[in-house]
Amino acid sequence: MTNDKGLLIVLSGPSGVGKGTVRKALFEDEETNFKYSISMTTRDKREGEVDGVDYFFKSREEFEQLIEQDKFIEYAEYVGNYYGTPVDFVHQTMEQGHDVFLEIEVEGAKQVRDKFPEALFIFLAPPSIEQLESRLVGRGTDSNEIIEHRISEAKRELTLMNLYDFVVVNDSIEEAKRKIRCIVEANHLRRSKVERHLRKLLLEVEE
Amino acid sequence: MTNDKGLLIVLSGPSGVGKGTVRKALFEDEETNFKYSISMTTRDKREGEVDGVDYFFKSREEFEQLIEQDKFIEYAEYVGNYYGTPVDFVHQTMEQGHDVFLEIEVEGAKQVRDKFPEALFIFLAPPSIEQLESRLVGRGTDSNEIIEHRISEAKRELTLMNLYDFVVVNDSIEEAKRKIRCIVEANHLRRSKVERHLRKLLLEVEE
Repeated sequence: MTNDKGLLIVLSGPSGVGKGTVRKALFEDEETNFKYSISMTTRDKREGEVDGVDYFFKSREEFEQLIEQDKFIEYAEYVGNYYGTPVDFVHQTMEQGHDVFLEIEVEGAKQVRDKFPEALFIFLAPPSIEQLESRLVGRGTDSNEIIEHRISEAKRELTLMNLYDFVVVNDSIEEAKRKIRCIVEANHLRRSKVERHLRKLLLEVEE
Repeated sequence: MTNDKGLLIVLSGPSGVGKGTVRKALFEDEETNFKYSISMTTRDKREGEVDGVDYFFKSREEFEQLIEQDKFIEYAEYVGNYYGTPVDFVHQTMEQGHDVFLEIEVEGAKQVRDKFPEALFIFLAPPSIEQLESRLVGRGTDSNEIIEHRISEAKRELTLMNLYDFVVVNDSIEEAKRKIRCIVEANHLRRSKVERHLRKLLLEVEE
């Protein structure tokens, strides 16, 4: 089925829910055969992050130039920084028949929904609000003010999960990973995705 | 989530595709946690089949009485015999929150679609027409006339796969089993199925 277009998989969820950790676990696993679309951001690099691996780190000026050139599927300003998904990689990869995986903020996911309504929207939900709060505090990289802003943002983002097709509760990284893979596989088994095999069989029947 | 209604899973496909074999493999596996709805039939018991396990074997008179009493979700006459799904077990089991699995002929599946449009309809497709024909011949339990009738029926049934949500090609029993389980799990992760968790989180947010 190499000529069939790949799926666009969008993983999102509130800040602090563990989207990045689940994404990393997925891509550390050899069985995961979707392509990761690396986001672009203007936020500071955190310890251990690598440019071109975790994100493409850009200046505000560079980012705004790319916005002008319509080079993003989605972008958002979030806690004072831009985050965006470069458009070219996503289109090319899907056309080649590979699934593309986006891990993005909820504001961005809303824009993707407008442009790719056929994408798989997966919301990563926290087991509880307490857990979400403790993760946002525990990260320990930000000031109190930023943490409080992020908590209130995260709560607002939670109310957006009604826009998603699937919800995966992140109570275990291994389970979250397995469930996301299963959602993708099931969608490849949708009738519309196996039409080539169907057409071939039906042609044989007519012979 | 014990109070949520279970899913109704309908596995169907042309005669000879191996529906029964896949169903048996599923239910021999301890990890499969859906309930099998045993069909009722008036056809003769085949070697190795057990009444109340593979089917409930009934006389034509008994079967027709149950039709009169509206005791079937679906029934069909197929190659001179009745096949049907008793209604009570399916309703009770779903209400208890368990998934119910039906393995039925394509004519029956059409009736289920009218009554349970929200069910998961999975079509088991043969890798090729040749394989389907050789399986129908190779079963070795029927006369040539019945085999030829069954082959032409099977080809007609193939053209009905457009009515299904998912297609699983039966090129390996293990893979077919895994894919069916994955389809069911993914559907449990649909937003509408995890609404209880969502409501709980959103209530916490409002506090």
